Amino acid sequence: MNINSRVPVGVLGASGYVGQELVRLLARHPGATIAFATAESAAGQRHEGIELVRIADAPLSKAEVVLSALPHGVSARYVHEARAAGKRAVDLSADFRLSPEAVYGLTEVTRPRLAAAELVANPGCYPTAALLALLPLAQRGLIDQSREVVIDAASGVTGAGRAPKQELLFGEVAEDFRAYAVGNEHRHLPELRNTLARESDFTGDLVFTPHLLPVKRGILETIHVPLTRVLDRATAEGIYESVYHDEPCVVVMHGALPSLKDVVHRNRVAIGVAAVANVRRPRLTVITAIDNLVKGAAGQAVQNMNVMLGLDETTGLL
Amino acid sequence: MNINSRVPVGVLGASGYVGQELVRLLARHPGATIAFATAESAAGQRHEGIELVRIADAPLSKAEVVLSALPHGVSARYVHEARAAGKRAVDLSADFRLSPEAVYGLTEVTRPRLAAAELVANPGCYPTAALLALLPLAQRGLIDQSREVVIDAASGVTGAGRAPKQELLFGEVAEDFRAYAVGNEHRHLPELRNTLARESDFTGDLVFTPHLLPVKRGILETIHVPLTRVLDRATAEGIYESVYHDEPCVVVMHGALPSLKDVVHRNRVAIGVAAVANVRRPRLTVITAIDNLVKGAAGQAVQNMNVMLGLDETTGLL
Amino acid sequence: MNINSRVPVGVLGASGYVGQELVRLLARHPGATIAFATAESAAGQRHEGIELVRIADAPLSKAEVVLSALPHGVSARYVHEARAAGKRAVDLSADFRLSPEAVYGLTEVTRPRLAAAELVANPGCYPTAALLALLPLAQRGLIDQSREVVIDAASGVTGAGRAPKQELLFGEVAEDFRAYAVGNEHRHLPELRNTLARESDFTGDLVFTPHLLPVKRGILETIHVPLTRVLDRATAEGIYESVYHDEPCVVVMHGALPSLKDVVHRNRVAIGVAAVANVRRPRLTVITAIDNLVKGAAGQAVQNMNVMLGLDETTGLL
Amino acid sequence: MNINSRVPVGVLGASGYVGQELVRLLARHPGATIAFATAESAAGQRHEGIELVRIADAPLSKAEVVLSALPHGVSARYVHEARAAGKRAVDLSADFRLSPEAVYGLTEVTRPRLAAAELVANPGCYPTAALLALLPLAQRGLIDQSREVVIDAASGVTGAGRAPKQELLFGEVAEDFRAYAVGNEHRHLPELRNTLARESDFTGDLVFTPHLLPVKRGILETIHVPLTRVLDRATAEGIYESVYHDEPCVVVMHGALPSLKDVVHRNRVAIGVAAVANVRRPRLTVITAIDNLVKGAAGQAVQNMNVMLGLDETTGLL
Repeated sequence: MNINSRVPVGVLGASGYVGQELVRLLARHPGATIAFATAESAAGQRHEGIELVRIADAPLSKAEVVLSALPHGVSARYVHEARAAGKRAVDLSADFRLSPEAVYGLTEVTRPRLAAAELVANPGCYPTAALLALLPLAQRGLIDQSREVVIDAASGVTGAGRAPKQELLFGEVAEDFRAYAVGNEHRHLPELRNTLARESDFTGDLVFTPHLLPVKRGILETIHVPLTRVLDRATAEGIYESVYHDEPCVVVMHGALPSLKDVVHRNRVAIGVAAVANVRRPRLTVITAIDNLVKGAAGQAVQNMNVMLGLDETTGLL
Repeated sequence: MNINSRVPVGVLGASGYVGQELVRLLARHPGATIAFATAESAAGQRHEGIELVRIADAPLSKAEVVLSALPHGVSARYVHEARAAGKRAVDLSADFRLSPEAVYGLTEVTRPRLAAAELVANPGCYPTAALLALLPLAQRGLIDQSREVVIDAASGVTGAGRAPKQELLFGEVAEDFRAYAVGNEHRHLPELRNTLARESDFTGDLVFTPHLLPVKRGILETIHVPLTRVLDRATAEGIYESVYHDEPCVVVMHGALPSLKDVVHRNRVAIGVAAVANVRRPRLTVITAIDNLVKGAAGQAVQNMNVMLGLDETTGLL
Repeated sequence: MNINSRVPVGVLGASGYVGQELVRLLARHPGATIAFATAESAAGQRHEGIELVRIADAPLSKAEVVLSALPHGVSARYVHEARAAGKRAVDLSADFRLSPEAVYGLTEVTRPRLAAAELVANPGCYPTAALLALLPLAQRGLIDQSREVVIDAASGVTGAGRAPKQELLFGEVAEDFRAYAVGNEHRHLPELRNTLARESDFTGDLVFTPHLLPVKRGILETIHVPLTRVLDRATAEGIYESVYHDEPCVVVMHGALPSLKDVVHRNRVAIGVAAVANVRRPRLTVITAIDNLVKGAAGQAVQNMNVMLGLDETTGLL
Repeated sequence: MNINSRVPVGVLGASGYVGQELVRLLARHPGATIAFATAESAAGQRHEGIELVRIADAPLSKAEVVLSALPHGVSARYVHEARAAGKRAVDLSADFRLSPEAVYGLTEVTRPRLAAAELVANPGCYPTAALLALLPLAQRGLIDQSREVVIDAASGVTGAGRAPKQELLFGEVAEDFRAYAVGNEHRHLPELRNTLARESDFTGDLVFTPHLLPVKRGILETIHVPLTRVLDRATAEGIYESVYHDEPCVVVMHGALPSLKDVVHRNRVAIGVAAVANVRRPRLTVITAIDNLVKGAAGQAVQNMNVMLGLDETTGLL
């Protein structure tokens, strides 16, 4: 691949944790070149050799594709501007995830719709891990919709962004662990429910409880699935294996369960399962892990961009 | 209180994390004095000014009460020896928790039986936090036993002991998070089920999944409770408040949820609740936190000892 | 000690890490009662059962002693107000450390001057650890003043305060380590030099380099001392032992070196030494550890207050 | 580069932290293929898709180059075997670092001797960081050899290996910090002294004190250099810049100092300097950072292998 054939990519919002990861990935991407990367208070600083410019100064015309890691609520405006200028875009904020304007970019599930997409809404970190675990079961009618699916998820602190807040100080987070948005209050729930309903016939109840882990990056989700029939571990693993055996970014574990160290710094979802003993009705516990900044954000955005551009899907990601 | 009135206490197994915490607490306890503290490979070392002696050399006759933090499977033999010598004992291992020989030492629940007890089985760390959260609901018939109670619990690494294992190295645990004993395989489940059945009429299904946190100490449990009727947050808090308002070692939070920092280094359980929105049937999420080494082990052992000796229950614990 | 005989103490600035530790210590202090504790944005919140009030609303007249953990530059004004109202004060900020108005409160060194002091300047955390290590050698003429004393110090993040700053976020500090104020730029150097000159005849050169550790609390200082004559380890330990053997808050280690875990959550300095092999001129390496929030701040303030009030020096500190 | 042209590489000792990093790097290396990777207790496990085999079963004949991450004292024997079989080797243990049998593989310094080397001794992690900082000054006669060079170094725990030891448990290391091998007792000192004497005329005194950091990976060294003449910061930066401006694996910082996050997961040394104020004689403080597993071990081994094989030096390392 010749440098002249590299696609110029613009990055909006390059100073947060997701934006930094995007720039890091694109700087090594053999099929892309960074046309510009924006930041406001960090404008003028260099990251991976790229000088950050204010968004007002970004040479939009130089980019063929725009990836936006701007904050929720801010991103939509700039993505619309890029679209108006004829640029294809991947939006990493929540702004388009529930919108018909965009194709939902859960690559393994919506791949056929991505190749021609003009605007892709990159999924949230928690939904990415949950959906890749739940959809294969839901699509086979294996989830007992009369009982609740309970998801306890834990995320590293980079998931909460890089803006200074007292509750995110090292002195507060180290040696601590806590739940937040308890009681189905998290913003990712509608995204999760909508996608389950759209990609399967699951419309059952979910109980989703996120937690803040004293680690920098990584998400682990412990997903409690009521089943319509008994599945032993090997059978459940076999279902996932049948769905994902050709997927380069999904690892199905056999007789083992994932932990954060299996996925951090990689564009990868790891999935493992366990049958639940000593309960009257059949149940499966599914454990999934991703890096919130990679497969949960910047990595999946690059994966989606690769599909949009007709590149090998894992280009720049291994 | 005069030093002559201090009760001489023997500590079996003082070199692990629980044993060290016991010695630390007893060394400051105004009503107790340490008659001896045992260790094997660490014999001869001093901890809190106390020289550790081999168990074979422990002057059992000098103690009035014996607290054992020996490993599961090892403890029973030495506790039986102490009992045969006429000593009252608190066993912190799992060896007597399911045995009719001992009174189960969940202080807030079994207090009336502790005063005269000769042998107390100190509860497991996970059951302590779970039972104090579940029993008030179970005893009022508020838990819908047709649906499963799901408990996701996360513990700091001192809960796994101090013996060197590769999986507990800093290089493995830092920046990691993982589930273990998934599928209802944890040793604490029978203790949890038995106690629920004995202290309430709850015999429903439990799904208990422990996780290993990259922190030194502390347990957080996220307990998903299916309800027989709707309870809003304030009502649920009111139930806990009515049960625990006179309890010095239980904190019921109002409009807030506990995190590890609320409880570490304290003999305290903190409990908070949230109603669950957007589900068809009523549910409550209860979050509880304890320090696995204090209220989850050594602190509760001292609390139980205080009750056995007729001392103020929090002596040496505040 | 009867509650009526408890001295009422006012705490200025109770919402930062040092202020919280002060309130925690005073709430358990058998000879003191908290007359008030101030905070601005956290006013109205409770800490250790004490409701925080705005400084403008603090009932100064109710306190007999005032301890100020206000920020540097802010504290002096309020301490002067308290002094004007006839209150004795301990200032934990840097505002009076170089001032003749105040007695420098390095308890083990300036104890005789503290009993009658009206205003005590509590030492900085780094100087506390360094001075207790250097003064015994300096006072005996053992430091070769023709060569530089090099001090590399590392502190937990609570030493940098609780105000939200990006560089103190968990996502920035975890898994990181860095030096700061390199090149003798740290504010604590004049305090260190002045005190050495005042309490010994040491006026030699110092090179002081602080570092930020990914821990919540604790300071370790590695102090490289050029000697005027050879001292082997045992002799050096003997010197410290002779100076500190009656000191309740100094631990001299023998054949071992301190680490943070020896001192955190305790009002204690630990000191250990090693002779340096394979160098042409005699040298000693002295390692000291303290908890920056306890002996490095709030604990030493209480220790000083105890001396001022004629209480046993360790009251409320063990 | 065609897969047929990939050089087959054998890895001895692939289950420790350094060995794992080697396999990780080689698995992505476009000019190498892993012929075998050995482990004993972990034999049969897969790492990066490679099945680990016992060293007794390693097909030595299939490799063209052998990289050994076996423990010190064990490595020499197997490296000799590989050499006897005609294989070129890079030994990552300490076994050949002081031996005339091997070329010392500090790539930036000994590059001309590496191309033809049959056996390369990969430097220790601490010496790599120290030497790249000291040699440019020593070679210009800028270090005042009448005064001691003091080096305080801090390393993440992976530097201590992966064998289970109580002192390396998460419960011991988290929230702790300590010095070790204090008093010039560390094994790396002879390597440091010899290399300084061989590559410059520096034969002055060193005081080297390593510390254990509660992080997984990374080394920071704070190097106190007595100077023969005053150097301001810009001049000192200019010296490093002149030496390293074409070096792909050395970053000279300007007006800033490195921290671990600048180097972890990269084959890179970062160097920054500060002049020291308020001292009578000229001094420079040099701060260097590396990842102990990459530029401090596996990465530098691959860098050396690349030079030996005539490949671009950074192949597989960016």
